[in-house]
Amino acid sequence: MLSKARSQFVRSLHQKKFRQEHGLFLVEGAKSVQEVLASDFRVEQLLATEAFYKENAQLADRQRPQVEIVLPDELTRIGTLETNNAALALARTTENHPLLADPGEMVLILDDIRDPGNLGTILRIADWYGISKVICSETTAEVYNPKVISASKGSFTRVRWFYTDLLTYAQDIPVTIPIYGAFLGGADVHTLAFGGGGGYLIMGNEANGIRPDLEPFVRQKVTIPRYGAAESLNVGIATAVILDNWRRGY
Amino acid sequence: MLSKARSQFVRSLHQKKFRQEHGLFLVEGAKSVQEVLASDFRVEQLLATEAFYKENAQLADRQRPQVEIVLPDELTRIGTLETNNAALALARTTENHPLLADPGEMVLILDDIRDPGNLGTILRIADWYGISKVICSETTAEVYNPKVISASKGSFTRVRWFYTDLLTYAQDIPVTIPIYGAFLGGADVHTLAFGGGGGYLIMGNEANGIRPDLEPFVRQKVTIPRYGAAESLNVGIATAVILDNWRRGY
Repeated sequence: MLSKARSQFVRSLHQKKFRQEHGLFLVEGAKSVQEVLASDFRVEQLLATEAFYKENAQLADRQRPQVEIVLPDELTRIGTLETNNAALALARTTENHPLLADPGEMVLILDDIRDPGNLGTILRIADWYGISKVICSETTAEVYNPKVISASKGSFTRVRWFYTDLLTYAQDIPVTIPIYGAFLGGADVHTLAFGGGGGYLIMGNEANGIRPDLEPFVRQKVTIPRYGAAESLNVGIATAVILDNWRRGY
Repeated sequence: MLSKARSQFVRSLHQKKFRQEHGLFLVEGAKSVQEVLASDFRVEQLLATEAFYKENAQLADRQRPQVEIVLPDELTRIGTLETNNAALALARTTENHPLLADPGEMVLILDDIRDPGNLGTILRIADWYGISKVICSETTAEVYNPKVISASKGSFTRVRWFYTDLLTYAQDIPVTIPIYGAFLGGADVHTLAFGGGGGYLIMGNEANGIRPDLEPFVRQKVTIPRYGAAESLNVGIATAVILDNWRRGY
């Protein structure tokens, strides 16, 4: 049975303040925990049901985390998921290292994506479309928020991120590299010649889009053509559709 | 101030049972309430803040609903949104009328989409891509669930739905009409010639995809090409990407 102290410690990690203080974040549910155990993230503690631990013992022992066998009810009580009958891992956060596009590489820039679910979904989409670097404004949701980790469905283990001041970052992008930005009234993604190279795609805030300060850095505005009457698409949906069009021209 | 009886009545509509019993559903928040007031849905009651009512009086009075001016706190307390400082409408549900594709029309079929947020997002996507008919399996989330209405961002007023047994429905689709279905291992949506006509697109359950019984009715399996390592895409995301590819070949 979980001690009160450990339960409280795990629960404290629901809050950003304590994630930062301890340098640890929560990974919850069978799939996500399997992915983090198999990844380069350092897993320090694993709380698992007996069944999950038996099935994943080899994977679990790879990193030699501190293991405790617990009941599903206990996992659910200390975690953030509605139910969790498998496992919860405490993994070490990584340092905020600068990331730049390699020649020909496609990189995503997120300007003020506030909703953790959207950020997690975008990591999953990036991973699907083979994008492994995501540059985030400092106002973008914290990637270690349990909702981000959970919505990413394990893709947080394959996509790297760099939180930075986007104005400074954008200033340093060589002039020969495309910087696409999602706007209303940009070039139609169905007909735009994306060319075979890489570059950057900037996606903006859920309500306000890309902020005016950043707009001058966008070298090619792009728009998803609309055939009906909805005012907009969710930012995750728009990211996927633009990447799909970029990839087909790549 | 809202009476206890009315508060309880509104709150009862959070549940499917009472929505069915009374034939009413909740529409919440400024944008959604404006859309429903301007739509063909019959709004029977409008609970609005003074500010919202003043700004939208003409629209609000169009249908002559019973109006009550309330405080934002009251709206939030009786509704399902985290906060609501604008309005809440009670609108009449519509009958479940059969819907068929007109010649050349694109229609969406949803097989067992369980998550209300996904269903709402899909309605919004359908609306963006000019699809106005959605056929739902009887196991698909109830469209009048407040989470569906809210996630659809007003698109529930422009997209119609028909809940039915999909096996019977699919049997009656003329053989000359394409029926696309989202599968792993289908034709690549980037290279498939969708042709200029309409047809049906079937999207399957979040975890299990299209059910085996329905699979024989799919005339063309389609797949979104993957460039990275994510195992799958969310069903809303996949719907948008497939519709985007279908539309560009339309």
